[in-house]
Amino acid sequence: MEMTLQVNGMTCGHCEKAVKGALGELEGIQGVDVDLASGKVDVVYDDTLVTKNEMKEAIEEQGYDVVA
Amino acid sequence: MEMTLQVNGMTCGHCEKAVKGALGELEGIQGVDVDLASGKVDVVYDDTLVTKNEMKEAIEEQGYDVVA
Repeated sequence: MEMTLQVNGMTCGHCEKAVKGALGELEGIQGVDVDLASGKVDVVYDDTLVTKNEMKEAIEEQGYDVVA
Repeated sequence: MEMTLQVNGMTCGHCEKAVKGALGELEGIQGVDVDLASGKVDVVYDDTLVTKNEMKEAIEEQGYDVVA
């Protein structure tokens, strides 16, 4: 499965790394691609193992807002 | 001794941490205070152990510009 999350507040490469790292720690995440300029985070995942809500929480724990 | 460096490109708390960490690894650095909004980095240091140029290089290695 693929999904694009809209994340606000990422400003630099460290932010990108924080979001990627947080998602990567979740079971069922197979790939993450972050576009800093647009805030779009493309995620490839196994929907039997992980939910959008879990991804959202992982990102928010790092201090960013998931707006969609 | 005290000095204020003007650093461009710091956008978030991770950037602040990167700059603080890089300076903190230098011998002779006694204190670092970063103001993200202004880009001002106040450094307390022992000028017999560390030079402004070494601080500048440490910050630039993290990907930021020291403009003064």
